[in-house]
Amino acid sequence: MNLLLLEPDEVLPDGVARVSGTRAAHLRNVLKVAPGQPIRVGVVDGPAGTAHVETMSDASVDLRCSFSGPTPERPIVDVLLALPRPKVMRRLWAQLAALGVGRIVLTNAARVERDYFDTHSLTPDTWRPLLLEGLQQARDTRLPLVSIHRRFRVLVEDELDALCGPATRIVADPAAATAPADVLANRVDQRVMLAIGPEGGWNPFELALLAARGFRAIGIGPRTLRSDTAAVALLAVVHDVLRTAGVEARG
Amino acid sequence: MNLLLLEPDEVLPDGVARVSGTRAAHLRNVLKVAPGQPIRVGVVDGPAGTAHVETMSDASVDLRCSFSGPTPERPIVDVLLALPRPKVMRRLWAQLAALGVGRIVLTNAARVERDYFDTHSLTPDTWRPLLLEGLQQARDTRLPLVSIHRRFRVLVEDELDALCGPATRIVADPAAATAPADVLANRVDQRVMLAIGPEGGWNPFELALLAARGFRAIGIGPRTLRSDTAAVALLAVVHDVLRTAGVEARG
Repeated sequence: MNLLLLEPDEVLPDGVARVSGTRAAHLRNVLKVAPGQPIRVGVVDGPAGTAHVETMSDASVDLRCSFSGPTPERPIVDVLLALPRPKVMRRLWAQLAALGVGRIVLTNAARVERDYFDTHSLTPDTWRPLLLEGLQQARDTRLPLVSIHRRFRVLVEDELDALCGPATRIVADPAAATAPADVLANRVDQRVMLAIGPEGGWNPFELALLAARGFRAIGIGPRTLRSDTAAVALLAVVHDVLRTAGVEARG
Repeated sequence: MNLLLLEPDEVLPDGVARVSGTRAAHLRNVLKVAPGQPIRVGVVDGPAGTAHVETMSDASVDLRCSFSGPTPERPIVDVLLALPRPKVMRRLWAQLAALGVGRIVLTNAARVERDYFDTHSLTPDTWRPLLLEGLQQARDTRLPLVSIHRRFRVLVEDELDALCGPATRIVADPAAATAPADVLANRVDQRVMLAIGPEGGWNPFELALLAARGFRAIGIGPRTLRSDTAAVALLAVVHDVLRTAGVEARG
């Protein structure tokens, strides 16, 4: 944990926040904080800042917080992800939040097993703590927005425009020779939407539908990756390309 | 499994290989092969090719193999990795092999817990099946070379040159403003060595020692990632930069 996230209603008007449970245990046992010590804090979807440990008890830690900085910008990359199997998705939540995504759109697809939607605990109670874990790792405060869609065609044809707004749309395809940089370096839109298929890939109908809705196929080489490795790899490459292009554009 | 790997001595002079155990079970239950069906095969550290299922029993599958292609080139990126905790390293073996590495050099560092070396099953019996799993996912045959070093300074000062030969050396540092492309796009060496520190980072002595031995610090942005996410992200970015630079150089 590189930044302790607080819920907005945890910070009292006088700037003091009392944390208990796993966060207090982490402060005490892992970070080994002592009264007076400064730590990085942030408010979920709010500013980051610094807190000093005021008092500690066996059950809780009181922090005096000062939030000076602005609220961070939401990451400019959104992901459209064919729902992976439950064990993989469970590992991905924190990694996606740590790498930086504005929005996570989970969708059905022909090669998504039907029971993934049933066996998943696809509720905020499951994903929110995992997303917060990733944000605390990456020192971010902006919680990714999450939505779940059981009908791929309805999502892509009718819902995606309103859901995500203007964005340069790319879809990962191991067969594509186009590199992410070829599409992203001179993009017009500020935001990027990255579609990542299921283990086994999108089927031809899905690829055609995505293409018809503006998704351009990109690839990061001929090696076929497991879907969780692919998601981390693609997101890292897209962020690196955007950062490099941004630096070049600025100067 | 996108390619079935065979050990060199499993393929008899007449081109028939008999596989049993988990590989036979995978062919039968996951790929659901039938006699006559073609599948992709490869020989560990040898060529890739095609096999046809000849006969199947409850215990084994006989494959008639034909290896036409050349042995793939060893991936041009090597990783120097501060040993992560056992659970993380266990997950990383297959991912590193799938992403493509020529060599995995595991090292001690100040912020590597001492007992990681003891509690790890750091033997080929542990890592080889996991590396093969990653190769079979990525359709590669070249098994990464692995070596383990308990003394960081001895490794970097005395052993690394002979172990890895000439390579453009980079070290991941969250504080670095230099992007991988800035160092790699115009590199002179064919090979690249990527050093990735422990959770918590290299200490100043280690960073200075790496710098003195030619490692240039690169970063992929201000977000601090967990070491397994960082390893996948960095390797993906480095491969993407090398591929993009290669395409530009060729055309």
